[in-house]
Amino acid sequence: MADDDTPLALQDPNYRVGIVDLLGALAYGELTAFERLAEDAKMAPTLTDKAALAAMASAEYGHFAALRDRLVALAADPAEAMAPFVATFDRFHEHTAPSDWLEGLVKAYVGDGLAADFYREVAAYVDADTRELILHTLSDTGYSEFAVERVRSAIAEDPVVGGRLALWGRRLVGEALSQAQVVVAERDGLSALLAGGVDRPGMDLAAIGRMFARLTENHAERMAKLGLAA
Amino acid sequence: MADDDTPLALQDPNYRVGIVDLLGALAYGELTAFERLAEDAKMAPTLTDKAALAAMASAEYGHFAALRDRLVALAADPAEAMAPFVATFDRFHEHTAPSDWLEGLVKAYVGDGLAADFYREVAAYVDADTRELILHTLSDTGYSEFAVERVRSAIAEDPVVGGRLALWGRRLVGEALSQAQVVVAERDGLSALLAGGVDRPGMDLAAIGRMFARLTENHAERMAKLGLAA
Repeated sequence: MADDDTPLALQDPNYRVGIVDLLGALAYGELTAFERLAEDAKMAPTLTDKAALAAMASAEYGHFAALRDRLVALAADPAEAMAPFVATFDRFHEHTAPSDWLEGLVKAYVGDGLAADFYREVAAYVDADTRELILHTLSDTGYSEFAVERVRSAIAEDPVVGGRLALWGRRLVGEALSQAQVVVAERDGLSALLAGGVDRPGMDLAAIGRMFARLTENHAERMAKLGLAA
Repeated sequence: MADDDTPLALQDPNYRVGIVDLLGALAYGELTAFERLAEDAKMAPTLTDKAALAAMASAEYGHFAALRDRLVALAADPAEAMAPFVATFDRFHEHTAPSDWLEGLVKAYVGDGLAADFYREVAAYVDADTRELILHTLSDTGYSEFAVERVRSAIAEDPVVGGRLALWGRRLVGEALSQAQVVVAERDGLSALLAGGVDRPGMDLAAIGRMFARLTENHAERMAKLGLAA
């Protein structure tokens, strides 16, 4: 595989293992996002709302397809690459199944935002082609903005809703970060990728801590945008 | 609304009512197809299969969005236009909820094919712009082809499966045609559209009968392709 067309970074087998891990995790994340958004769309109170969540689900499928195609281009089997992350993502969604439409909306908005932030963070540690793919995958978010208006007006109608959804938002981010830590800890390839190499920047523990701090901070901003205490 | 840019056909208020009805029905059909395919994707035995059904669901969402945008362009409210068809489509899906992955596959393949045939039939009775949209909506099917291979190999492994799925296919088409008849009978706008006008071709009862015969015939061909008796 290491011919002249292969980027330098991918000629390093350890790097390649890490990238396949990363793309596998992102791809399965997008596939489950598709599934769960489609599921949550069932709770929509109107056809317009249902269509808005379906649009998000469909966009996540598009992200998945781009990541899967990249895995294929790297001669990796997408199903195999995703397999190590099935249990973690499924556990996350099991632990954060929305009990109503508003919880679904908050999850869509908060989840989409967290995922986008994580993509942006991780883009710094990968080769140029993968970076372009990852940043491109980000570029068509914005589907979740409709959630802001819906959540804010629900709180305006009934302020009690705000307290409940604030707790819910905290649970979502806690669950997401703890599952993310499990994934990185369990997968040597991913840890090695984030740790960097002689020719690639890496993250030490302090840097990982700062990344988590940034993710949490942005999460708080999103909660504020929804009108919720973080 | 009847300015110089409005196509002649749409200046006829009865025609406009019929077209809004038709687009509303097709749009809600696509939105529920998205929902049900996403739901059925959960039963997929492998991640590759799940992704294939998710691709179909996502394509149906794309069709929905095109039809909805057309309704908006006609100054119609998409949710209102879809409302009269909610009960019928929901009933169809309730009566044809697949009990396993193979039934889901057959439904996806047969349903996609029937819908495409119906679109093609109806395209003859609408103005040029709407026709172009309808035929364009058709142009990216082909997602369901993977079903053929899957169903055929399941039957090869266990011929009993073939008998069960053949019955299932018959139930699907029966349910689809009977719900379609209810829709046309209940909606004066749609009946009027199909009946034609002084300047538009129309269908008499005999023509409607021939249309149903063509739909049934194509269905039988699809069943044969799946390796099933129609």
